[in-house]
Amino acid sequence: MTETGFEARDPAYEARIRGSFARQQFMATIGAVLDVVLPGFCEISARHDPGLTQQHGFFHGGLIGTLADTAAGYAAYTLMAADSSVLSIEYKINFMAPAHGERLIARGRVIRPGRQIHVARADVFAVEEGVEKQVSTATVTLICLAGRDDFPQDQAAEKKETRS
Amino acid sequence: MTETGFEARDPAYEARIRGSFARQQFMATIGAVLDVVLPGFCEISARHDPGLTQQHGFFHGGLIGTLADTAAGYAAYTLMAADSSVLSIEYKINFMAPAHGERLIARGRVIRPGRQIHVARADVFAVEEGVEKQVSTATVTLICLAGRDDFPQDQAAEKKETRS
Amino acid sequence: MTETGFEARDPAYEARIRGSFARQQFMATIGAVLDVVLPGFCEISARHDPGLTQQHGFFHGGLIGTLADTAAGYAAYTLMAADSSVLSIEYKINFMAPAHGERLIARGRVIRPGRQIHVARADVFAVEEGVEKQVSTATVTLICLAGRDDFPQDQAAEKKETRS
Amino acid sequence: MTETGFEARDPAYEARIRGSFARQQFMATIGAVLDVVLPGFCEISARHDPGLTQQHGFFHGGLIGTLADTAAGYAAYTLMAADSSVLSIEYKINFMAPAHGERLIARGRVIRPGRQIHVARADVFAVEEGVEKQVSTATVTLICLAGRDDFPQDQAAEKKETRS
Repeated sequence: MTETGFEARDPAYEARIRGSFARQQFMATIGAVLDVVLPGFCEISARHDPGLTQQHGFFHGGLIGTLADTAAGYAAYTLMAADSSVLSIEYKINFMAPAHGERLIARGRVIRPGRQIHVARADVFAVEEGVEKQVSTATVTLICLAGRDDFPQDQAAEKKETRS
Repeated sequence: MTETGFEARDPAYEARIRGSFARQQFMATIGAVLDVVLPGFCEISARHDPGLTQQHGFFHGGLIGTLADTAAGYAAYTLMAADSSVLSIEYKINFMAPAHGERLIARGRVIRPGRQIHVARADVFAVEEGVEKQVSTATVTLICLAGRDDFPQDQAAEKKETRS
Repeated sequence: MTETGFEARDPAYEARIRGSFARQQFMATIGAVLDVVLPGFCEISARHDPGLTQQHGFFHGGLIGTLADTAAGYAAYTLMAADSSVLSIEYKINFMAPAHGERLIARGRVIRPGRQIHVARADVFAVEEGVEKQVSTATVTLICLAGRDDFPQDQAAEKKETRS
Repeated sequence: MTETGFEARDPAYEARIRGSFARQQFMATIGAVLDVVLPGFCEISARHDPGLTQQHGFFHGGLIGTLADTAAGYAAYTLMAADSSVLSIEYKINFMAPAHGERLIARGRVIRPGRQIHVARADVFAVEEGVEKQVSTATVTLICLAGRDDFPQDQAAEKKETRS
């Protein structure tokens, strides 16, 4: 057992999650960074940038949802087999306070791992002058696609060629 | 009554929504365009761009949620008074098919207007070789903040100075 | 194609759903009736009874959720194979108006059938002096358990014995 | 500060919640008991009864949702003023394991109190041979109606007459 209470069956889970995160080009677009990956846990953050705001100057709700969905998805993906991939079935997010400050942090935690269906929670915090304040909570339902590589089709083909 | 079944109390609702959308800098970051605004209805779309994708090369779920949240929010905002602003309380989105193609369209519709609380639905479609396919459906709960301008604090101050 | 736009692969789907509904003893407790079953569609209703109310005398939100969950679940179950069973993964319901009147009607419709995961919507209406008013909308995610009979363990055993 | 981290502004909050719970006739129908009320917290449970089951013999998902909605609602209501009432705007519940056993316990906790909008979580546990297992988690959004008594219209009228 680890500090998160979960054990990853794939010893290379962190490299697998970091590789997948790096292929999510939307993460680069929003400047998101993968801070922490542990079995059943994932933390992602983004620095404030005017390009991430909504009409009142706060972090955009869609951005908050994006970080929550991604942190929850990778938290679940840490517990899956090496040759699987993960998809979000649905997520639900509540906005509890305006999100302003210098940084946004999403912490995803698996609350119910399954053979196929996983449930994870992601809490999102805004950091203002170094002080964290929770701004959102999300529940995310994920499905494990067994035997399906995480790579997109064309890159998977390339990868295969490189191997042969 | 209009074609959407709703009447906007603010005759300048379209200019108000377009102004607010233009101040959402995250919309520019993701290349979103405000296609249609009608009483109780709003359509937003984004062209495919590698910078909007997740690890399998599809449109990112967080992006889909962003378009859904925004389309639903502005659909509700069309029905609100000129001096009000709108906030999402929560949204819930189901992903029904992988979102690939040249464009993503979110159509938000008010399903229950209220004095304060509004409920809207947003369906999201991927367009591939000109054919639309529904990829998501979202339910969004919004609150009307009466008597609060849509402008961010500093811009509101500027606006006030300009007026005087 | 039928009027609902769906085709049931199991020709005996209606008897299967009616049998399953009859085994849901909670339906009898709340006086719920299975009004209509069509491919991808299910309508369930309950007459007003003081035993179904919340503190303000309206139909209880949990009861409304129960009817919505059940109508959506059976709408999805109509499209599944004869030897499968159905489980709700999650549901989300919005309350849009106080539910008072002589009857409550939930109409469930499949909005995205899948091999395994189905998404259905259930709209709930209160009937007051014969006039329907929508009081709720729910989105329900369901999973098809292939090769698992709908019967509870002990009854399934009995059924097997009877067959042999 | 109390053990829950919240302070109730109405010193008579427990009597107020117990009175409201007693007027929810649906609670009697399902045999629900109000076990614990603390500032920002509420626990409700129901004993197993065949009349509460779904087709596989487990506690019905709608019943689980009912307990979750009610526990979350009363958790939020503890923090509201004496002359207010509470309504659920929406709830979302995930089913994480089949709910079987002798008892079902729902624990509602406020996670974000507000002037008007409150967000609460309710976790539901099935107790089998004395051992608790989490079967569900729900997020509930509630609204405080200030200045509106919790009593139903006719009883409120009666109460008023009695007072005069």
